[in-house]
Amino acid sequence: MSFDYRRTHTCGALRQKDVGHLVTLSGWVNRRRDHGGLIFIDLRDRFGLTQLVFDPIKNPETHRQAEKLRAEWVISIKGKVSSRAEGMANPKLETGEIEVLVDEMEILSKAKTPPFSICDDLIDVNEELRLKYRYLDIRRGDVTRKLLVRHKAMLATRQYLDQQGFLEIATPILGKSTPEGARDYLVPSRIYPGTFYALPQSPQIFKQLLMVAGMDRYFQIAQCFRDEDLRADRQPEFTQIDMEISFGKPEDIQSIIEGLLKAIFKTCTNIEITTPFRRLSHQICMEKYGCDRPDLRFGMELHTLNEIAQQTTFSVFLDQLREGGIVKGLCVKGGADLSRKAIDEYTEFVGRLGIKGLAWIKYQEGGLNSSIVKFFPEAAQQQLIQEMGMEVGDLIFMIADQPARTNQALDHLRRKIARDRGLIDPQRYEFLWVTDFPLFSWDAETRRLQSEHHPFTSPHSDDLHLLETDPLKMRSSGYDIVLNGYEIGGGSQRIHNSDLQQKIFESLKLTPEELEIKFGFFLEALSYGTPPHLGIALGLDRLVMILTQTENIRDVIAFPKTQKASDLMMECPSKVDHEQLKELEIRVPESQFSWT
Amino acid sequence: MSFDYRRTHTCGALRQKDVGHLVTLSGWVNRRRDHGGLIFIDLRDRFGLTQLVFDPIKNPETHRQAEKLRAEWVISIKGKVSSRAEGMANPKLETGEIEVLVDEMEILSKAKTPPFSICDDLIDVNEELRLKYRYLDIRRGDVTRKLLVRHKAMLATRQYLDQQGFLEIATPILGKSTPEGARDYLVPSRIYPGTFYALPQSPQIFKQLLMVAGMDRYFQIAQCFRDEDLRADRQPEFTQIDMEISFGKPEDIQSIIEGLLKAIFKTCTNIEITTPFRRLSHQICMEKYGCDRPDLRFGMELHTLNEIAQQTTFSVFLDQLREGGIVKGLCVKGGADLSRKAIDEYTEFVGRLGIKGLAWIKYQEGGLNSSIVKFFPEAAQQQLIQEMGMEVGDLIFMIADQPARTNQALDHLRRKIARDRGLIDPQRYEFLWVTDFPLFSWDAETRRLQSEHHPFTSPHSDDLHLLETDPLKMRSSGYDIVLNGYEIGGGSQRIHNSDLQQKIFESLKLTPEELEIKFGFFLEALSYGTPPHLGIALGLDRLVMILTQTENIRDVIAFPKTQKASDLMMECPSKVDHEQLKELEIRVPESQFSWT
Repeated sequence: MSFDYRRTHTCGALRQKDVGHLVTLSGWVNRRRDHGGLIFIDLRDRFGLTQLVFDPIKNPETHRQAEKLRAEWVISIKGKVSSRAEGMANPKLETGEIEVLVDEMEILSKAKTPPFSICDDLIDVNEELRLKYRYLDIRRGDVTRKLLVRHKAMLATRQYLDQQGFLEIATPILGKSTPEGARDYLVPSRIYPGTFYALPQSPQIFKQLLMVAGMDRYFQIAQCFRDEDLRADRQPEFTQIDMEISFGKPEDIQSIIEGLLKAIFKTCTNIEITTPFRRLSHQICMEKYGCDRPDLRFGMELHTLNEIAQQTTFSVFLDQLREGGIVKGLCVKGGADLSRKAIDEYTEFVGRLGIKGLAWIKYQEGGLNSSIVKFFPEAAQQQLIQEMGMEVGDLIFMIADQPARTNQALDHLRRKIARDRGLIDPQRYEFLWVTDFPLFSWDAETRRLQSEHHPFTSPHSDDLHLLETDPLKMRSSGYDIVLNGYEIGGGSQRIHNSDLQQKIFESLKLTPEELEIKFGFFLEALSYGTPPHLGIALGLDRLVMILTQTENIRDVIAFPKTQKASDLMMECPSKVDHEQLKELEIRVPESQFSWT
Repeated sequence: MSFDYRRTHTCGALRQKDVGHLVTLSGWVNRRRDHGGLIFIDLRDRFGLTQLVFDPIKNPETHRQAEKLRAEWVISIKGKVSSRAEGMANPKLETGEIEVLVDEMEILSKAKTPPFSICDDLIDVNEELRLKYRYLDIRRGDVTRKLLVRHKAMLATRQYLDQQGFLEIATPILGKSTPEGARDYLVPSRIYPGTFYALPQSPQIFKQLLMVAGMDRYFQIAQCFRDEDLRADRQPEFTQIDMEISFGKPEDIQSIIEGLLKAIFKTCTNIEITTPFRRLSHQICMEKYGCDRPDLRFGMELHTLNEIAQQTTFSVFLDQLREGGIVKGLCVKGGADLSRKAIDEYTEFVGRLGIKGLAWIKYQEGGLNSSIVKFFPEAAQQQLIQEMGMEVGDLIFMIADQPARTNQALDHLRRKIARDRGLIDPQRYEFLWVTDFPLFSWDAETRRLQSEHHPFTSPHSDDLHLLETDPLKMRSSGYDIVLNGYEIGGGSQRIHNSDLQQKIFESLKLTPEELEIKFGFFLEALSYGTPPHLGIALGLDRLVMILTQTENIRDVIAFPKTQKASDLMMECPSKVDHEQLKELEIRVPESQFSWT
């Protein structure tokens, strides 16, 4: 009978109360130390570390075997749990009060020397190397813990939504190409040469069809795909918590999401978040924060200063106002301590965002102080102090430029100053609903309206009359959810009337033919009795990033791809057999690309 | 303020105890009946039906509106719950004791006349039409109920496996092409022209890498893809409950699966299944049932009759035995009542499976009766009666042919007779583990060994020595789980030694180059300290089919594809813009295929 490597305990389980018991442990050699004849092995699995002791006197044979052990070998041992000697307990380890005196050992698997050390929590390893040996990278406790949080977040989501009457329904991965905005990944069909499936960018159409189908409340933790040139925090495949309900209003789905996030945070971090969340209109967000996903963990709100600027003789302000620009500012509490050099650095910072100048005024004992104060009449100075809520010791920054650019620069500046001055509490979670987005924006290049969210978003019910006359003024029924400055999800009331949906498509200048090919079946579906419905999708990857306090999306995905959409471990995408392409009847250029 | 269509109750919720309450219901018009001035509407949602009453005297305005209502219109009403009149209760309906007297109504959405009726449970609609209008097909309660069971089965799986210490970890959909057996679906890469991703046929390699990574217990409800010419019960994308554990033995994962299926059956059907399941070796299955996935809801086991046949003078038997064939039979209890015609039909039935003759003998008062009895000496007759367990009134069928063909024919015959004679209790669930499969089979066409399961399956530990000498005799460590004659899953102990894995690949005659390109990274991974590990995958679609007692896989998938792998609703696969192909640098033939 061979050695039975089945464990009685994991490497994280044994405690003082287990002393005297015979146990079987299996795991990886994390570290070996030889001390005065005794050999100590830290045995590791994903649950923890346990110290093993090999005694040459009690078990010379096993001790001899243990001399051969190297890092990352997989072994199984049988032995007796013992208290560590007085003063030798390790309080940092959950198993730190005990050790196991080994009687028997079996080597289950040897290991080559790994390309980087597993047992340090050293993150200072080239990321490409970590991705190539992802199976070793995961062994480091850090990635394991993130995958554990991801598992818990998914399970909490499913349990909560089930309790709320949702059904989880999988929708197809092999779908139809209807590219909007992003590129589709295509899959050639062998049975119908020359045609393609597309991987879904989201289950949007399917979930609406499920509402047409009467499913009432649907959700899915859905894989989605976008063939984009990736930004740092994007992946070609990503995961969203996708849901849709019938016969509800935005406040219904918002309150479901608040309950869901409460459950997820409680389960994953034991933090009680406060609900309901704050709500701000898109317009007020832009006004106060210069962006539609403000970080509310700190203040420093923006103020529009057009009226005060109008009273000055400062030509930079006056020229901008004449050309349709705006003047906005923010107040840095205690910022009068900023050096000239620090201010110059902020000026350069906004300069990289296309802003020509960053005006500043300090409020010091004796009054406002800046090279531009002279352009401000006394009354304007008083108004400025009041509007900005300035106290002695504060500083304000002001920018005068076109509205979009001004907002963008002040948003970035506000967040940078907050980071620089330590205004952000990393343990705080500030949620926000942003509502009343514009329905359309104007694409200057194609000279067409485009949907700000997507074409299935219902217009705000008060604004329907503007569709023919002033569509850019229309608000949508969309809502985004923002957490600590990140958009973690978004949704909307959908159009449930086939005629209105058709009009919206037409105002986006889809030709009747395009419309028929891409969305004909969907308009048809809407015409068979469609309930009012609405939904939302949360970005799971982003959410887990926040829950695990990482900025790197690859940390929260088991087998991520690089920013160039490649898998360094499997070396894919890769060339395929000529035979496979022949069956698909597709021809490709000779690949210039090689992994070797 | 517009009509608030948010419901106080679903259409399946109201009971006698709610009488007198004011309620808001929303849903679909299932049926309208006009009776002596009153209009009755059955309002439907996925939870049930509620009867609405429109009274022309109490509410002439609302009654006038109701006259316009047609099937499948979506409406919302407010009204008061009332007891139905004496004798008017409908015991078939959960809401059958009450009705709602409507005060106000809003039409939320009109509907065109649907292409088939929703309110009958009539299944007699062309399946293509049902698939084209899948969103209407789902409205029929039958499909809804199946999707509900699927949801419950998935949630029960996740809760149970979480309790057993498993982590759910998603693995990539964009993977590497390593076709084995089935064709891969390919996805062209835009960034590296001429290269491809492949959609996974299973997460096999990833789940093994997660064990190398120390994740200990992994599971996933995984989408998998095979570009096959589809059989009736296959889909191009299908779902499996996929799992893997470290440091375990087959009995460990078998007991986990038994607990899982117990939980699923309890949750979905309230049936208590009995564990542990039976276990049979592959060899005994073939011997007793002629197949490796026997239906154990009935007996009628096969018996090998070579020795008895040897004693006869029946040349058909003797010739087959001489040529390496076998003689096997089964006993139909009470089968002496079979008519000549019935017997002829069974003969034709096995004839279609390549069998030239079906011998039969009836045991009647007075002895055995058949045209071939004369070839059986008296002793052989007695042995036959004993071996087959015959009693007066029984019949045996016998086949003499090559072993594989004989087994196949008798397996089919056994199941056909069971169906014909009503021997199968549809409420019974007979689970079975089949073990000790052959590791390899011989592919006569390519003249190579091929893996019976897959090349990662560990050989049976007693048979390792046969690898060089007699590989076809080797048993694997695989195990299949069979339910009522269907294979619902399979798995194995995996090879965790890089050298042995390499030897197995070599015995499959992979060239060193193929091996390096396809599996080089995997062999490398195994060499960094791999724990003994093993796993299994259950077919979710098949399991839900059994739970919902349907033979049609498309019934248990929200948006299924046809046997030709097309989506009739979205009309996909479809042609794509020239621009998309240009970006991918791929060329395709002009598609001959059109949906119109």
